[in-house]
Amino acid sequence: MSSWYDHIDSRALFEAYPIGEAFTARYTKMSRDELRARQEADFQKLMARGWEVPFYRRLWGSKGIEPGDIQSLDDLPKLPSFDKSDLMASIAAHPPLGDFHGRSGGPVVLHTTSGTTGKPQVLLFGPWGREVGNLLVARMALWQGLRSDDVVHSVYGHGMINGGHYIREAYTRFTEALFLSAGTGIETRSATQVQLMADFGATVLVGFVDYVRKLAEVAREAGLAPGRDIPVRMIIGHLGTEDRAATEAAWGGAKAYDWYGVGDTGSIAGEGPDRDGLYVWEDAQLVEICDVETGAPLPRGQKGDMVVTCLYKRDVAPVIRFNTHDVSAFRTDRNATGMVFDRIEGFLGRSDNMVKLKGINVFPHAIGAIIENRPELTGEYVCRLARAGGQDRMTVILEHRNAAAADSKPYAALLKQGLGVEVEVKLVAPGETAPMTQIDVRQKALRLIDERRA
Amino acid sequence: MSSWYDHIDSRALFEAYPIGEAFTARYTKMSRDELRARQEADFQKLMARGWEVPFYRRLWGSKGIEPGDIQSLDDLPKLPSFDKSDLMASIAAHPPLGDFHGRSGGPVVLHTTSGTTGKPQVLLFGPWGREVGNLLVARMALWQGLRSDDVVHSVYGHGMINGGHYIREAYTRFTEALFLSAGTGIETRSATQVQLMADFGATVLVGFVDYVRKLAEVAREAGLAPGRDIPVRMIIGHLGTEDRAATEAAWGGAKAYDWYGVGDTGSIAGEGPDRDGLYVWEDAQLVEICDVETGAPLPRGQKGDMVVTCLYKRDVAPVIRFNTHDVSAFRTDRNATGMVFDRIEGFLGRSDNMVKLKGINVFPHAIGAIIENRPELTGEYVCRLARAGGQDRMTVILEHRNAAAADSKPYAALLKQGLGVEVEVKLVAPGETAPMTQIDVRQKALRLIDERRA
Repeated sequence: MSSWYDHIDSRALFEAYPIGEAFTARYTKMSRDELRARQEADFQKLMARGWEVPFYRRLWGSKGIEPGDIQSLDDLPKLPSFDKSDLMASIAAHPPLGDFHGRSGGPVVLHTTSGTTGKPQVLLFGPWGREVGNLLVARMALWQGLRSDDVVHSVYGHGMINGGHYIREAYTRFTEALFLSAGTGIETRSATQVQLMADFGATVLVGFVDYVRKLAEVAREAGLAPGRDIPVRMIIGHLGTEDRAATEAAWGGAKAYDWYGVGDTGSIAGEGPDRDGLYVWEDAQLVEICDVETGAPLPRGQKGDMVVTCLYKRDVAPVIRFNTHDVSAFRTDRNATGMVFDRIEGFLGRSDNMVKLKGINVFPHAIGAIIENRPELTGEYVCRLARAGGQDRMTVILEHRNAAAADSKPYAALLKQGLGVEVEVKLVAPGETAPMTQIDVRQKALRLIDERRA
Repeated sequence: MSSWYDHIDSRALFEAYPIGEAFTARYTKMSRDELRARQEADFQKLMARGWEVPFYRRLWGSKGIEPGDIQSLDDLPKLPSFDKSDLMASIAAHPPLGDFHGRSGGPVVLHTTSGTTGKPQVLLFGPWGREVGNLLVARMALWQGLRSDDVVHSVYGHGMINGGHYIREAYTRFTEALFLSAGTGIETRSATQVQLMADFGATVLVGFVDYVRKLAEVAREAGLAPGRDIPVRMIIGHLGTEDRAATEAAWGGAKAYDWYGVGDTGSIAGEGPDRDGLYVWEDAQLVEICDVETGAPLPRGQKGDMVVTCLYKRDVAPVIRFNTHDVSAFRTDRNATGMVFDRIEGFLGRSDNMVKLKGINVFPHAIGAIIENRPELTGEYVCRLARAGGQDRMTVILEHRNAAAADSKPYAALLKQGLGVEVEVKLVAPGETAPMTQIDVRQKALRLIDERRA
C-alpha cells in the first residue's frame, strides 16, 4: 500500500509552484507569453487526464467533442462548462463518489462542501492535487506578509467539511506559524475562542468574515480589546462585498486581505500586499468570466460567472471548466507589484441567488457594501423574498443599535439608490438576524430567505 | 521559511519505522537484544535532546542529576517522572507554550488535549515527531487487517483537540483507505453520521467506544441495521475495561480492536491480529509500569501506572518518563504472532480516579467489565461518590431496560463481588446516565462524579 510520501516529490512541488521569495522572484520577471507557454504545457497534460475520466468523456462526448478538437487553450471555450448540479447528478448515478474522480488507488482525501443541503457533495483529492492546493493558500499568506512568528487563529469548520482541514494543512505544512484550529463556534465556543486568542497572542485571523466580525464583539463583551489584548494584525478572509473597513475597525485596525476559492478548485485568487484586486494564481488556475445566461466568455472588465479550470489538479478529480456561479470581473488596469498574473474583482454575488425585481437584477450580497461605515448599524442583514399579487417583493432586515426608536425611511432610500429598485426595510436589534442568517452555525451566513414557495 | 517537507526524509522514516509487511518481517525476526540495542541508540539521542530543554534541565537538576548520571536505559528509573500537572505548571510559568517544547523554529503542530478543564493543556509536535506518531497509528491498523478498499469512519473530535486531526493524518497519509472525518456528535449530528456511514459503506469505525456503541443505537433507530446496511467489520477504539462483546454485538459482529495512547505520547500500544494483549511499539515507545504510590518500577505482571518515554520524539516536546496515571500491567505469557514486542493489558483504570472505600482500592472503570453481557442493561453506568458521617459512600447508577420494575439487589451483590466492597445501586432508564457521563458531548465519558467537596 503506498503512502502520501510516495506521491509527492517535494523538489518537483516547489519547482512547479515556488513559494516565498522564489514566488515573487519568478513571477515578477515572467512575461505573459512565458506564462501562457507554461499553461499550455499543463493544459495538454490536463486534457489527456480528462479523457480518462468517465464524467468528462460523457460531458464532452454528449456535445460531439473528440480529443483532436481541443488542441490548445484557445479551444477551451469549446468545452461545455459544468457545475455543482452535474457533480450531484454524477454522485446520484454512481454513488457514493460519482464518476468524476478517475481514481484507481493511492492515498486520497475525501471531504464535503459546507453549504450543502440533503446529500453531501463529495470533494476528492489525490496527494499532488491536495498539496498544491495547500501550498497556494500558504503562498498567498506569505506574500501578504505572514511571518514565522505569527499565531494564526482559524475559524474554518472541521468534521466532514473541507475548509478547516485544508487551511490547517496549508499553514502547518508550508509555514512556520503557530496554527490554532479553533473551527466554528460550535466546535469551540466563541467565548472560549477569544480567550484562546488572547492566551496565545493571535496575530492573524482566518475565516469567513461574518464570524470574524462576530468574534470582535464577543471579545469586547469579555473585556478583551481587539488589537490590544488580542494583537491581530492581519485578517485573511472572504471579504466578498462585505465591509472591509468595518471588519478592520472591529479588530482595532488590523489589515484585511481578501481571497477567493471554492472547495472543488482550491484557492483561485487572492490579494497581494497591495490589496488592489485579487491575483489569479495563473501557474495553477485558469479563470474565464462568462455570461451568466449564455455561458459565452465576456470581454475583459464585464461581470459574469467565474468558470475555473485547475491546471494543477491532474491526479484525482480534475476540474475543467467548472462554473462556480460566483460573479466577478477581470481588472483591466496595471498592478503595482509587477506580478505577471491577471487580477479579478472580489466576489460580487451569486448568479444563482440573483433576484429579479421589476426587471432589475439584484444581488443580495451587494447590500453589505451599501450599508457599510454606519456606526449605528452592526453590518448584519438578511433579505426576505416573498410573492404577493403575482409580484416578488423583497424586505431587507437591518440590525440597528437603536432599532426601536430609529426611522427606517433613510435606509429604504439608501438601498433604493444602491440596488436600483425599491425594497422594504425593517430594523431589528443587534443579534436578531442571527436566527435567519444562521451565522452562529453556518460557515457562510445566509443573506437571502426565499419564501416564495412557502 | 522551511516547509514540512524540508524536515521529513521519507526514506529514513520508513527505514526507522517500517510499515505493512516490512513491519512484521522485521519485528518477528528481531531478538530482544537487537531491539534493546536499537532502543539504547535512540535513548542516547533522546537524552542529549532532553538536556537542551529547560523543563527537563529544571526537573532533573532539582533532583541533583547530571548528564553523566544517565549512561543507559538501565539508568532510566533514576530520572524523576512527571505528569500533566507539571506540564500545566510549566505553561503557567511560561505562557502560553510552557518550556517543555525546546522549539526554536521550523513548522510545528499545536493542539490541546480533550479532557481539560480551565486553561487548555498544550500539545506540540515537530514534523518528525508528528509523522512518526501518525505512522504508528496506521501501522497498527494495517497489521490488524485494514485494506486499501476500506472506508474508515472516525468519530474523534476536531477543533483545537488533537485526536481527530491526528487520526485523520494517520489514515490519509499512510493508508489508501477512504477516510470520513465525521468527528463528534456535535460536529456531525449522530443521525447524519449513520446516514453518511450507510451512504459511503463504512467498513471500519474508529473512536471512543462509548460513542461507537451509541451510534449503533442511532443507526437502528434510523432503520439501518448495523453490519448489514452499514457494513462495519472492524472497530478500532479504546476498549479499556469496556464491553468488547457488547460493542461487537451492537455492530452486528464486527471485530473490535483495542489500543492505547495519550495526546502527549501518541500511540503507545495496540492489539495485533491475535487480539490478545496490546503490543507496545517498542521501536518508538518505552513503557514502565510503576507503583501508584511510590513510583518504583514494579515486577512484570503487577498493576501500576504507565510511565512512558517516547524514543522517537526528539524534535519538539520530547517525552521522557511521563506518568499517564493510566493503570496497566505487563503480560507475562508468550504471544502467538512471534512479534518481539512486549504486551500490556488494556487500560485498567485511572490511578488518580482510584477511590478508597473501607480500605479497598476501587477503579470505577472496572464496573464496565463487571456488568457486561447482560442484555437487560445497556452497559452505561456512572458512579457518584459522597461523604456522609465521615465515610465515603459510592452509588453506582446502572441503565436498565426495565428500570421501573427491576430489583437492584442482584446488581448490588454482583458489584460487591466484582469490586470487593459494598456499594449502593440505583437503576435508571436507558439514556438517563448521559447527562452525568456527558457521553454526547465528551470524547471520554465520565464514570465518576465526586460530590464529596460539594
